[in-house]
Amino acid sequence: MGLSNHFELTATDGGARTGRLTTPHGVVRTPAFMPVGTAGAMKGVHWREVREAGADIVLGNTYHLMLRPGAQRIADLGGLQKFTGWGGPMLTDSGGFQVMSLADLRKVSENAVTFRSHIDGARVELSPERSIEVQRLLGSDIAMQMDECVRLPAERADIERAMQLSLRWAERSKRAFETAPPGYMLFGIAQGGDVPELRHASARGIVDIGFHGYAIGGLAVGEPQAVMLAMIEEVVPHLTADRPRYLMGVGTPEDLLEAIRRGIDMFDCVMPTRNGRHGVAFTRHGQINLRNARHADDPRPLDEASEWPATRDTARAYLHHLVKSGETLGAMLLSEINIAYYQRLMRDVSEAVSKGTFADFYERTKADWARGDIAPR
Amino acid sequence: MGLSNHFELTATDGGARTGRLTTPHGVVRTPAFMPVGTAGAMKGVHWREVREAGADIVLGNTYHLMLRPGAQRIADLGGLQKFTGWGGPMLTDSGGFQVMSLADLRKVSENAVTFRSHIDGARVELSPERSIEVQRLLGSDIAMQMDECVRLPAERADIERAMQLSLRWAERSKRAFETAPPGYMLFGIAQGGDVPELRHASARGIVDIGFHGYAIGGLAVGEPQAVMLAMIEEVVPHLTADRPRYLMGVGTPEDLLEAIRRGIDMFDCVMPTRNGRHGVAFTRHGQINLRNARHADDPRPLDEASEWPATRDTARAYLHHLVKSGETLGAMLLSEINIAYYQRLMRDVSEAVSKGTFADFYERTKADWARGDIAPR
Repeated sequence: MGLSNHFELTATDGGARTGRLTTPHGVVRTPAFMPVGTAGAMKGVHWREVREAGADIVLGNTYHLMLRPGAQRIADLGGLQKFTGWGGPMLTDSGGFQVMSLADLRKVSENAVTFRSHIDGARVELSPERSIEVQRLLGSDIAMQMDECVRLPAERADIERAMQLSLRWAERSKRAFETAPPGYMLFGIAQGGDVPELRHASARGIVDIGFHGYAIGGLAVGEPQAVMLAMIEEVVPHLTADRPRYLMGVGTPEDLLEAIRRGIDMFDCVMPTRNGRHGVAFTRHGQINLRNARHADDPRPLDEASEWPATRDTARAYLHHLVKSGETLGAMLLSEINIAYYQRLMRDVSEAVSKGTFADFYERTKADWARGDIAPR
Repeated sequence: MGLSNHFELTATDGGARTGRLTTPHGVVRTPAFMPVGTAGAMKGVHWREVREAGADIVLGNTYHLMLRPGAQRIADLGGLQKFTGWGGPMLTDSGGFQVMSLADLRKVSENAVTFRSHIDGARVELSPERSIEVQRLLGSDIAMQMDECVRLPAERADIERAMQLSLRWAERSKRAFETAPPGYMLFGIAQGGDVPELRHASARGIVDIGFHGYAIGGLAVGEPQAVMLAMIEEVVPHLTADRPRYLMGVGTPEDLLEAIRRGIDMFDCVMPTRNGRHGVAFTRHGQINLRNARHADDPRPLDEASEWPATRDTARAYLHHLVKSGETLGAMLLSEINIAYYQRLMRDVSEAVSKGTFADFYERTKADWARGDIAPR
């Protein structure tokens, strides 16, 4: 209860919002897409490119960083922002989700999850309190409560059990965070799978506990987009309007646009870099697969109207060649092109919301994507 | 005979030289180290970083490019400089060396080498004439004659046979190059293994044929450094002083410094990027292996006096973490750090030669390397 508010809502337009979140390492403009630097690095992208692309905040994974190089080491080196050279705001997850997807021999109890490290097999225990301790050692501007996320589809009883456990962990996380210095933030997470009543109960539960911001977890875990959007609609009315709302692990540009329309302010996803490594570009014309032979002799760039140099100036034929040859530069260029596209989309949304033209922007952007790529030549 | 000269020697100091080589795509300051962009890309390094590091010219491999994406395709897309977006001068090798090291079922005859592509198994024939044709399609500012390179140690008879064949191929290459537009250059290559008389004969042979510049091939192929340097001393007096001299496939910073002292102007090597991918940095303090645990907690940069941002600002602890974690960013940072160090070394040599202080510079640089890395903390 009564946690200080660092979020300033500067405009709304229908459900869409734009604002500013002030963190110890700088201001984050919202809507914000956080590129994912799992182990303290963005795969294939220099930090200066992340910054130039317009990202204000990035995400680091607590699970990876606690195992290597270790949270205490990062604390001794001045925190994650200084250690990596990124310097700007960083959000870290609790580590819980990665334990479930990456670690061996994991076991969930009321108190904690125990697992074996996927790096060296060491036995590790991660409790809500330990997760907060690790995230504070990392120096995260925004820490996340530990929760349990259930893959969908799942039985209602399993979803409810995980949701109730996550609420108890939310309370413990908040207590563990009480001594954090001012300005640092802790977000609670609403769970509840694809069951509206459980989503309502979870959202009310975390708001009652009180956090600096509220996340929606347990989506983009196998359900159709329509289910994800329906769940956002179930949760958002139960969250307080003056705090930032963060949809975890999402998604495609279309997912983002739809979620923003329903009141979401923050996102993270590996998609821009992962798809970039697989030869796929996100553009104004939708997704473009550079492996396709139609690009082999095409001297045109992905989008001649883009303000991002690599998007505007690199020949499709060259990108095709790099991807086909397995050259690192292909993954590097497509990853930065994708991060820049996501950031540009966030800036365009913000401008449209400020001007009250979000509905137009939404229709125009969806039409551009639907029209697809320029004709081959 | 009588090929136009595009090289201007601006200063000499002992054996060391500095000058300018004017190509159709720009001026190359010498001594020049050419980073290797094998398949039309520098591994892990953006072109803008190559340029900012001070490289005026890069090398592309004809063997790789003719197989994928194909020489005619690159010609149709405006040549290698435009295709890649590098824009600056490019030298290509003849393809012969890579055929010997990478292709399957290769067979050397008087007329040509035939081989199977390592990419798709296709049967390919590469003659001196075809090599020139391919390099002209690529748009190379500097083409290399096709030669046969013998791994050392080797029998004298084998070395002599390959050297004589290379001379006959030199004549055929020059003839095939006759219709090239003005400004584009063709370099001859001196072979002869580790046999002084064969080196003399080969050098005189290519000078008699007459090229825009002269290369020394068949070194850095397994022989000790002392043998390499001795062979440079045997060859250089037989090359005309007004043309650029290029030592192929070399080498460490120390190799470069020693070769420059003996009159070499140009180099190429994969070492900066390859060693970077293996966690090794080239610095003023010599080679530094970032895998070493001594760096794990060290917040200091590789060289706080460097003017290259990544060398001066990145914590050793972070580089160590990236290398240990297999993060692409580690290879990316170390590759650009190494390219920047090589380029800086070339600029420092040029300045010392211009001022007549090369001997001092040589001693000071070797002493810095010998002193090794800063003390651990």
